[in-house]
Amino acid sequence: MKRPISLEILKELPTSQARAGVIHTPHGDIKTPAFIAVATKATTKGLGSFMYEDMGIQAVIANAYHLYLTPGEKTVEKGGGVGKFMSFQGPTMTDSGGFQVFSLGEGFGKKVSKVSVEEKPREAAIAVFDEDIATSHGKLAIVDDEGVSFTSHHDGSLHRFTPERSMEIQHALGADIIFAFDECTSPTADHAYQKEAMDRTHRWAKRSLAAHRQDIDANAKQGIYGIIQGGRYPDLRIESAHELADMDFDGYGIGGSFSKQDILGILEKVNTELPKEKPRHLLGIGEPEDMFIGVAAGIDTFDCVLPTRNGRNATVYTFGGKTSLERALNIDDQGPIDRECDCFVCKRYSRSYIRHLFKSGEMLGGVLASAHNMRFLTRLVENIRQSILDDSFESYRDAFLSAYMRQQAK
Amino acid sequence: MKRPISLEILKELPTSQARAGVIHTPHGDIKTPAFIAVATKATTKGLGSFMYEDMGIQAVIANAYHLYLTPGEKTVEKGGGVGKFMSFQGPTMTDSGGFQVFSLGEGFGKKVSKVSVEEKPREAAIAVFDEDIATSHGKLAIVDDEGVSFTSHHDGSLHRFTPERSMEIQHALGADIIFAFDECTSPTADHAYQKEAMDRTHRWAKRSLAAHRQDIDANAKQGIYGIIQGGRYPDLRIESAHELADMDFDGYGIGGSFSKQDILGILEKVNTELPKEKPRHLLGIGEPEDMFIGVAAGIDTFDCVLPTRNGRNATVYTFGGKTSLERALNIDDQGPIDRECDCFVCKRYSRSYIRHLFKSGEMLGGVLASAHNMRFLTRLVENIRQSILDDSFESYRDAFLSAYMRQQAK
Repeated sequence: MKRPISLEILKELPTSQARAGVIHTPHGDIKTPAFIAVATKATTKGLGSFMYEDMGIQAVIANAYHLYLTPGEKTVEKGGGVGKFMSFQGPTMTDSGGFQVFSLGEGFGKKVSKVSVEEKPREAAIAVFDEDIATSHGKLAIVDDEGVSFTSHHDGSLHRFTPERSMEIQHALGADIIFAFDECTSPTADHAYQKEAMDRTHRWAKRSLAAHRQDIDANAKQGIYGIIQGGRYPDLRIESAHELADMDFDGYGIGGSFSKQDILGILEKVNTELPKEKPRHLLGIGEPEDMFIGVAAGIDTFDCVLPTRNGRNATVYTFGGKTSLERALNIDDQGPIDRECDCFVCKRYSRSYIRHLFKSGEMLGGVLASAHNMRFLTRLVENIRQSILDDSFESYRDAFLSAYMRQQAK
Repeated sequence: MKRPISLEILKELPTSQARAGVIHTPHGDIKTPAFIAVATKATTKGLGSFMYEDMGIQAVIANAYHLYLTPGEKTVEKGGGVGKFMSFQGPTMTDSGGFQVFSLGEGFGKKVSKVSVEEKPREAAIAVFDEDIATSHGKLAIVDDEGVSFTSHHDGSLHRFTPERSMEIQHALGADIIFAFDECTSPTADHAYQKEAMDRTHRWAKRSLAAHRQDIDANAKQGIYGIIQGGRYPDLRIESAHELADMDFDGYGIGGSFSKQDILGILEKVNTELPKEKPRHLLGIGEPEDMFIGVAAGIDTFDCVLPTRNGRNATVYTFGGKTSLERALNIDDQGPIDRECDCFVCKRYSRSYIRHLFKSGEMLGGVLASAHNMRFLTRLVENIRQSILDDSFESYRDAFLSAYMRQQAK
């Protein structure tokens, strides 16, 4: 049976693992390398899907955890799945929500709690939850070998995810590409715990895959990616890639809590372990300089919240580097954010005007800066893709980075 | 010399003062009756000018007071005037800022202070300002016969507007239609004070007009509207219209602080006093039911912040009445906000999705609801205009209001 997700490689470079291709999905093609727009709650912050085409957005990645909590996966399903729900015709992905579940514990300065497998996880979770709710709520995720119990960050209510439940939710959400449920550790966790969590993630990967393949309908319409873990330890990352490569996933995500430096350095080795013919997605990383490293290491797709987060804070990407529109030198600057940019914001609006919007607290400022940033990144990967096809990847990279990073250093 | 602003009347109804026409401006025509989008700080809240065409927005009204404070009229002038600054090609207006200056006093629950003409206004203003700043700032406007001194709501700095200064600012802002500087009284002010303020507004109207006509360049490019005051008193409103009608304005605004009921009831009489051949703008009023009353009384253009303010609060207009998208019945409603609406929001997005955006605190919710509301109102006046041209105004009004108000009553 033909799989719903497949990668067609158009060109591979001899000097690195860089490659250009096309990911075929039931909702159309993704030309790779590609930047995937983050749409956590079925919306890219500040940007409507009616603007996607102008921004060169090919595909989006939503989040199963967030959509499960609100509006609920059943509501999204009734709306035709995450793509139709948000009125986007193109390819969609959903992250499993592992990262978000576990960051509940981290996000508020607490470590994720871990109970031993001997304890009954549900009861243990309730016990801890009850102790905790007197002062606060939504802080705790408790992992056991079966899955994870967590409190909603909305209302403190108790929930439980298992690999099987995550698949069920992601089937209802109906994205073209779904992700296995993984345990996302703290970036500071030691080798022993990272190893334990990674092994559990591999067992969950098998269960996620099995649950997905068993659902004939979902399996025919959705592809599933396994997620490589292992924290900041190269040996674990390589082991994780090696083990997951043996499982019949349709593609791979490289995820987890890590510092960018750690993960970028071992991407090449990780990708060497992975089957060439399957697409590879780098979760949560996608600033300009990162994408060149990722592409050279064999990454096909990226996602990152920074274009919109930066945009809401008036920070914009330009081919000359990142800069803040709030700087005084923009007060009467009639030029666009970036003279080389082809986005509708740069075609229409001056730095002077957008600075005024930020200074006046008008939300349009964040919308315009986010839209520009998004187009900047989608265009950058379009250029990277073309440079691979033209055999000029290294020279394009060097020229881009020398202009871009010089400004950063200022 | 041909004036930059002129009204061409295409049709007048025999049964009321309703009329359909075209206002010619240097930046294009406004088909009237028309709803003018509010763009106080050179942006319609949440909506970019790149969306205006889709929303049927013909013209916008910005505010001289706000743009004077930030980014400053010189910055807008360097950006090519308010239209070019915000990347809008069509006709623009600027309100003089009288309302905003005076509402500084009102807005925080304090009456506008009034000093007698014998006092030196500038010194008096500083004295009161100094007393006041210990606890708060930005609260006070002090009017004298020459003009008004006020503190910025941004930083408490002291400023002064006179009719001449208002013209200078509005010339720099460069809108096609500017407004005379007026004193805007409290709606609760008594007849004696309203009369005094109205008389002063008439003197200021003369000075505004003179200052405008003397600037040969501005006079060739911008038209000026006088503003009819008189609060809630019909005798004063009629007197104000009568007096201003004798001045050579290019059009008239009907303004001031008032309750909607008061002003709508005397519009007919006010407009009877005004020269037929000049356009009439009703400042700050423009909900569906008001526009029918206004049009029947001879109003050509309306502006109102409610479509976007309501939109940000999830309240939307439909041909069946106003409703909140947050209502539970919308949870799984796959239909558009309004099945009869032609806006891009109704073409693309479901109530279920937009409700989810509001419930998730995503700004796109407010953007979409505001865009829909804006198009709802521009389309409603387009329909009203057509009904005048077709001699079916009264029947269209009755049919619309019977559906619209029935729902409201629920």
